[in-house]
Amino acid sequence: MSEALFQDVIRKRRSVRKFEPGRSVERDVLKRIVDCGRWAPSGANVQCFDFIVIDEPGLRERVMDVFLGQAQRLVDHARGFPAVKKTYLANTAAIIIVVGDPRWKVCFPQPTSKGWEAEYLDNNEVIFLNSIGAAIQNIQLGVAAEGLTSAWLSGGGEPVTNKELSELLGYPQWMRAYGTIPIGYPAATQNRRYRRPLVQALHWNGYQPTQYRSHAQVDFYESTLRPFAMYRDEESMESWDDRAEKLGEWEAAFTTGTSNPPGELEPEADFSKPRTTGQATKRRLKD
Amino acid sequence: MSEALFQDVIRKRRSVRKFEPGRSVERDVLKRIVDCGRWAPSGANVQCFDFIVIDEPGLRERVMDVFLGQAQRLVDHARGFPAVKKTYLANTAAIIIVVGDPRWKVCFPQPTSKGWEAEYLDNNEVIFLNSIGAAIQNIQLGVAAEGLTSAWLSGGGEPVTNKELSELLGYPQWMRAYGTIPIGYPAATQNRRYRRPLVQALHWNGYQPTQYRSHAQVDFYESTLRPFAMYRDEESMESWDDRAEKLGEWEAAFTTGTSNPPGELEPEADFSKPRTTGQATKRRLKD
Repeated sequence: MSEALFQDVIRKRRSVRKFEPGRSVERDVLKRIVDCGRWAPSGANVQCFDFIVIDEPGLRERVMDVFLGQAQRLVDHARGFPAVKKTYLANTAAIIIVVGDPRWKVCFPQPTSKGWEAEYLDNNEVIFLNSIGAAIQNIQLGVAAEGLTSAWLSGGGEPVTNKELSELLGYPQWMRAYGTIPIGYPAATQNRRYRRPLVQALHWNGYQPTQYRSHAQVDFYESTLRPFAMYRDEESMESWDDRAEKLGEWEAAFTTGTSNPPGELEPEADFSKPRTTGQATKRRLKD
Repeated sequence: MSEALFQDVIRKRRSVRKFEPGRSVERDVLKRIVDCGRWAPSGANVQCFDFIVIDEPGLRERVMDVFLGQAQRLVDHARGFPAVKKTYLANTAAIIIVVGDPRWKVCFPQPTSKGWEAEYLDNNEVIFLNSIGAAIQNIQLGVAAEGLTSAWLSGGGEPVTNKELSELLGYPQWMRAYGTIPIGYPAATQNRRYRRPLVQALHWNGYQPTQYRSHAQVDFYESTLRPFAMYRDEESMESWDDRAEKLGEWEAAFTTGTSNPPGELEPEADFSKPRTTGQATKRRLKD
């Protein structure tokens, strides 16, 4: 492996949707990438994940077919989500699937009595999924360290997709494909994606209410800003030529450390369903 | 920052439970660490996390008190979990808390009709928690890159602990402290922790049933092996002098690529409750 510097790797990693055609990845490289996943921490050190690496072209095509179906279902059955067409998968050199094994949750703290179930049982799932997230992230960083690029398909674990993948790849259906990471050689320059300003994300010695993102800001992101924040190649929205048009009254909230000048927090709101519908799709078509 | 090599950082990161006393961490260093968390990927790029950094000594002590209470509740109310005493927190130089904001799940794919709720709603939580896991892992890697060391306390998000932290730190109680990362200077050499052999964790072109971990193996880990796998400083159990005694018939399953020689898979089993009780604690006391 070339001697990649840590700070470069952290920033270089991002979801890229265009791979160079006709390339393959050596097995030694794939092993080093999976080894990064293996070093991820997990609750009670249970290592509740397996890594399936697909580099055989025929099988790779069949896995891609599953994800093309998954993308089409998203278009048909998920409201207004600005999905990219997964056709870029065509030049994928290899695919790593991180399969999670739920049995290991038994090794996390278990309540001794009924009265403590709320305290511990729900947190089992949190520890489990956070651990898998750490493994997926290590894999993605390992990919970037090798000069390759990847996308993170978080949609492999839904029931229909998981059933198809389980039948194709042979893992028990009660395990789940939590992360699917297609790997390739970047066909385009790897620019960065939007990130909140550090001064907004970092709170010193207590949560700072002026750095809070209001319910209305979340609504605005979901209904309007999401496709641009997801797919434009700029770290800061300040670099957008059309930021006044796209951000309007929300410009300061997305580009400065003061997203909530009045400093007032809000009570919990029901965000379990989209609060505005369809606008995201409409706006995306205008871009 | 010193020029840390990526591969060293990935391996150097681990939970260390002994910090050097009397040290503090500069704010520029803490900012660089949080910046790593900020670069973590998240579903629909929502960045559904805030980072609270505590370096003020009085507040740091109060946060530690919350975790000492949390550790005591674990001893009192969580069956047989081999918790470490959290007294090592005493020499913590700073604490970073990763707070997750559940509202952003609305930006992940939402079902268009009732019939598709199973496919998408549950997966919202998965994307949310995997994203937070990636941010926690980036923070921990950032800590290691600075020559510092950290632990990952995954227990800050349970209801009682979260309520106390929320009141102390001022974040809305409907947000949740998913990861708490005490940081310090390593007082001891940083050895590695047990990891499954790469040849067991990596499956080429499909799940390999001989690399499956049987229900009985999970039981054995939960009831017997857990405290040693969690706290001993060896990457491979082959380095344990007492491996025959500790592993018995399970030695090959934990040290080779063939954890399941017959290659038979098993149907789903109920692991929602511990299948054996109390043994882990008993065995630990014998160590």
